[in-house]
Amino acid sequence: MNEISNNKYAVILAGGVGSRFWPLSRELEPKQFLKLKGNKSLLQQTVKRITPFIAPKNIYIVANCRHNFEIKRQVENFFIPEANIILEPEGKNTAPAIGLAARFIIKQDPDAIMFVFPSDHFISNNTSFLGVLKQAEILAGKDYLVTLGIPPTMPHTGYGYIKIQTIDHRPQTIDLKSKNRQAKYKAYRVEKFVEKPDRVKAEKYFKDKKYFWNSGMFIWKAKVILDEITAYLPELAAKLKKIDTADINEKTWKRIPAISLDYGILEKSKRTAVVAAKDIGWSDLGSWPALAELLAKDKNGNTIQADSIDIGSKNTAVFGEPRLIATIGLKDLIISDTPDALLVCDKSRAEEVKEIVRILKQNRRKEHSIHTKVKRPWGTYTVLNSGIGFKVKLVEVLPHKRLSLQRHIQRSEHWVVVEGEAKITNKKNTLYLNTNESTYIPKKGIHCLENPIDIPLKIIEVQCGKYLEEDDIQRLEDEYGRSAGK
Amino acid sequence: MNEISNNKYAVILAGGVGSRFWPLSRELEPKQFLKLKGNKSLLQQTVKRITPFIAPKNIYIVANCRHNFEIKRQVENFFIPEANIILEPEGKNTAPAIGLAARFIIKQDPDAIMFVFPSDHFISNNTSFLGVLKQAEILAGKDYLVTLGIPPTMPHTGYGYIKIQTIDHRPQTIDLKSKNRQAKYKAYRVEKFVEKPDRVKAEKYFKDKKYFWNSGMFIWKAKVILDEITAYLPELAAKLKKIDTADINEKTWKRIPAISLDYGILEKSKRTAVVAAKDIGWSDLGSWPALAELLAKDKNGNTIQADSIDIGSKNTAVFGEPRLIATIGLKDLIISDTPDALLVCDKSRAEEVKEIVRILKQNRRKEHSIHTKVKRPWGTYTVLNSGIGFKVKLVEVLPHKRLSLQRHIQRSEHWVVVEGEAKITNKKNTLYLNTNESTYIPKKGIHCLENPIDIPLKIIEVQCGKYLEEDDIQRLEDEYGRSAGK
Repeated sequence: MNEISNNKYAVILAGGVGSRFWPLSRELEPKQFLKLKGNKSLLQQTVKRITPFIAPKNIYIVANCRHNFEIKRQVENFFIPEANIILEPEGKNTAPAIGLAARFIIKQDPDAIMFVFPSDHFISNNTSFLGVLKQAEILAGKDYLVTLGIPPTMPHTGYGYIKIQTIDHRPQTIDLKSKNRQAKYKAYRVEKFVEKPDRVKAEKYFKDKKYFWNSGMFIWKAKVILDEITAYLPELAAKLKKIDTADINEKTWKRIPAISLDYGILEKSKRTAVVAAKDIGWSDLGSWPALAELLAKDKNGNTIQADSIDIGSKNTAVFGEPRLIATIGLKDLIISDTPDALLVCDKSRAEEVKEIVRILKQNRRKEHSIHTKVKRPWGTYTVLNSGIGFKVKLVEVLPHKRLSLQRHIQRSEHWVVVEGEAKITNKKNTLYLNTNESTYIPKKGIHCLENPIDIPLKIIEVQCGKYLEEDDIQRLEDEYGRSAGK
Repeated sequence: MNEISNNKYAVILAGGVGSRFWPLSRELEPKQFLKLKGNKSLLQQTVKRITPFIAPKNIYIVANCRHNFEIKRQVENFFIPEANIILEPEGKNTAPAIGLAARFIIKQDPDAIMFVFPSDHFISNNTSFLGVLKQAEILAGKDYLVTLGIPPTMPHTGYGYIKIQTIDHRPQTIDLKSKNRQAKYKAYRVEKFVEKPDRVKAEKYFKDKKYFWNSGMFIWKAKVILDEITAYLPELAAKLKKIDTADINEKTWKRIPAISLDYGILEKSKRTAVVAAKDIGWSDLGSWPALAELLAKDKNGNTIQADSIDIGSKNTAVFGEPRLIATIGLKDLIISDTPDALLVCDKSRAEEVKEIVRILKQNRRKEHSIHTKVKRPWGTYTVLNSGIGFKVKLVEVLPHKRLSLQRHIQRSEHWVVVEGEAKITNKKNTLYLNTNESTYIPKKGIHCLENPIDIPLKIIEVQCGKYLEEDDIQRLEDEYGRSAGK
């Protein structure tokens, strides 16, 4: 078998919101985009992990359309074709996302084997992981719907469980021996998928040894999963057929039912199998304490990733920048500090971070949605200060990127270049400004800002006007296909 | 007796650092300047509290010279003569400060009675307080050194105690009856002053009923305290005589020994008395938890003075602005958040905040010293952002105030007026800039910024240059008598 054979396809599910890592995660910067451990984001780690096994041209990513530019930026160095980034007009849970991706893939290869991965998990042992995938591939070739099962290390109540089939209490393994050697990772027929248990059931499952945690990683033929969707979710199957993969229609997509693949298919299918994914060093990073567990600790059990001074705290994790965080005598806490929002939370109640996010959304605030530093296709902007009639921004433009040709009806702007060099269109003039040079963009003046050189450009923008919101923008030309206010 | 008789003088000791309220308090904004409870600072409350009793022209304030402008701004509406603000070149504890103030006062009035108050305590019942002062004044008139004693409400280990004299276990009260009525507040001869006790001794003192807390409020004749200083601290007395009250020489002052009046005089003097200052609602606000005690609580015992969302916390106090603070499941914590530093502290260990301040100082940081928003005699500035070669400031100039005529050798500045109106000297030109207008101050260009009108002026200043510290300033004229970099 060729390491990178052509019928292997990956589907990375990157549409998640990841509100449990608030305030570090926001709607526009969900967990999969964050560098929680290491110098790559979880999404980037997910892609990198599978590239020894699956060709970049066969890697698909399903994401929410609002993350369009960030997804592309995140994976730009992996040679994934832009057409492989499937943008859902809105999140519809896993079954529609996987069904849609299967339709993309089957068009490329009717015999495709699909490997489905969440984009926001952590795996420390890639060698074991790839070994597990190879076993799973063999099973998928025999038309099984394969799930990677994680051998439980504790009676966790936060995961779904997979019970394996037994006859006379003997687990029903599936023979995966290759010619010359034993299979390293065992495979079993599945008796049933069970939802997140309560504490008592979790204890029972843990002791029973016939249960695995459901990792949400799946392997199957594209054809088989589409057949199963037709069999068990005929409405979804019918609606998916109406979607043009070249141009996903927003209205058609909105009528698709939101349903999880676990509930809609796996709990019903007769073709399910599980591979025991032991030793892969898996964590779903489901919460702040799960992250703290993965990171280095000092002798008092503290994890400090901040400019911090501590006196006598224990089992406490402190995340934040750039501010100084002083802690005294804390126990079992999570502190996560960002420029506009701070979380201080007892570790045992970290699940309730989601509730904070819900309250913020309900109160129509912005701290659940965007960071102070807002990402744009051309770079970032950060609101430094604002008052009645003015707003001050730091605008950072990536090398050779350009903002749209635009104008504002209600505000004028003063620009001072503080780093790099700017090419500026101001009305009919083109200016090249160096550091320590400035220009004034009057109300209604058509203008454009561009970084013409190889190093980042920073300008300080002082806006003056009665109305200073992002939607006061008329785009006359935009490289990124955006209309007003995006 | 006239309510405001002319021989009553107040001395407010305002030289304290108040590091226990870090990060809200800083070296340049110590506790006495903060509005911890109510809309006046503790210093302002102290002044206001005594003005029904002591004429403003007789109120003296002893402070550290580095708080010169802030002290004057704080008390500008109280009609205290500027000459009454005594600025110590450096803090020397209470005995030199009180001795120096006594020398000022005795020059005004050889029969002066001096009322000495800390500037950073809280008193809720002013009527009772003034009653206590009247009793104390009578005693002081009889040449006693009077301390206001607070009847203990718990076995506190953070205060010094005053033991009253007894004969056959009977307290030795001093008869203070006026002709027509009983004295409302009892007065006693003092047996001894004792330092902060340990837990066991504090329990004993509390049960014993013959102890008061030492409030640090003293009443005596200026002549008597100077005599006592001569008797018990002859070195200090000699050195104080060398100080010219019209112009305190820095070198002479530095040679003065730092010593507390309690230790140097009160523990030794035979003339000490204490007035039982009951029902005055006193708190020394010695720590964050002491403040939390004074403020309103919700039904779970939480005090929230921040933009905050809480789920299920108890007995926790949250202070901060402007950021959102989300708290989940906390117990007995203090959170104090400021733009550049955050404190999260177990209430039982709030004393250790001082240790954080000590570490910051030792590490030559700035978070113990100044806030992001820095006060100046003419207004404030706030650093909004900085990078290699640039710094962005919001500069706020109070109505009709002016910065010095100055120049910078290593930086140029871009100014954009965003609120109000500016009168600007730029080289030889005088400009009047309105909102949404800008100017450029070149390197070495002599310039001046002034707010010529009745409303505040805000400008955004973008500095560009290789060296951007505050000490790159040459002052050619300054209304406030400052030299470079102050």
